[in-house]
Amino acid sequence: MVRLALYQPDIPQNMGTLLRFGACLNVPVDVIGPTGFDMSDRSLKRAAMDYITRSDLTRHISFDRFLDSDQRKSGRLILSTTKATTIYTDFEFLQGDIILLGRESSGVPEHVVQASDAQIKIPMARDVRSLNIAVAGAMIIGEALRQTGYFDDRTGSEASVSDKTA
Amino acid sequence: MVRLALYQPDIPQNMGTLLRFGACLNVPVDVIGPTGFDMSDRSLKRAAMDYITRSDLTRHISFDRFLDSDQRKSGRLILSTTKATTIYTDFEFLQGDIILLGRESSGVPEHVVQASDAQIKIPMARDVRSLNIAVAGAMIIGEALRQTGYFDDRTGSEASVSDKTA
Repeated sequence: MVRLALYQPDIPQNMGTLLRFGACLNVPVDVIGPTGFDMSDRSLKRAAMDYITRSDLTRHISFDRFLDSDQRKSGRLILSTTKATTIYTDFEFLQGDIILLGRESSGVPEHVVQASDAQIKIPMARDVRSLNIAVAGAMIIGEALRQTGYFDDRTGSEASVSDKTA
Repeated sequence: MVRLALYQPDIPQNMGTLLRFGACLNVPVDVIGPTGFDMSDRSLKRAAMDYITRSDLTRHISFDRFLDSDQRKSGRLILSTTKATTIYTDFEFLQGDIILLGRESSGVPEHVVQASDAQIKIPMARDVRSLNIAVAGAMIIGEALRQTGYFDDRTGSEASVSDKTA
């Protein structure tokens, strides 16, 4: 329904936390390299826990390769950036949207901004810089899932049972 | 407007991430002890970064002391628990609500459930256990802030300027 894409993640633990998040919320994750660490990284594995094998993960060796991929074709590419003017809760998410998070250290270069269909932000208190990227991703994806109806048919364990028979 | 309370947090890094989150979104944080680590913990400081001094943090030595505190009087105590039946996006948040997160390892004991005014959950995919607590807290607080109008007057840097003159 909604995808999460990470642009050249530089903190393996945050990528691990987001893989765990994706596994828990049925959100496929695209990791756009190079990453500077591999899937055997200890911090990544510790943060992802056993969810790493349950996550729907696609790795792309470069941004250009991501742009050419089937995953990219799922919908619009929505970039989270502190430079955006639209607040994420004012943005109208659609099924298939791909939420793109930049590097925690440096965001994304201009050509990635240009390749995105829209830019959104989480407004910060005065004089603070940024949220942890896993926290920011969770807030935005949570809102996108809410808007696109992901939570509507999940009213507790009863709903899980009816999902199964649907 | 909305507060975040952590019940006996057992992973200092997650507490640090949530203190950073609170500083970025103007959310005061109540930490209910005992915690098993102190404010000089290295993992906590690394995750909280320099936001630790900007966070509006109140420490309570026990849950009973928290119940008697001025902070507890700000509004309803809303417990996040996987055992809840109400999905957080269906819950109607109010100004002053305190979102209470349990221990990552073991949640909260029954007397804490009884002391809460409502229980909410983030619905999980089948056969997965739990989200990282900082990620779960960010999703719920994000939704509570959205519902209570926190983002309404924050339409970019222009709004920050007008805030200043308001």
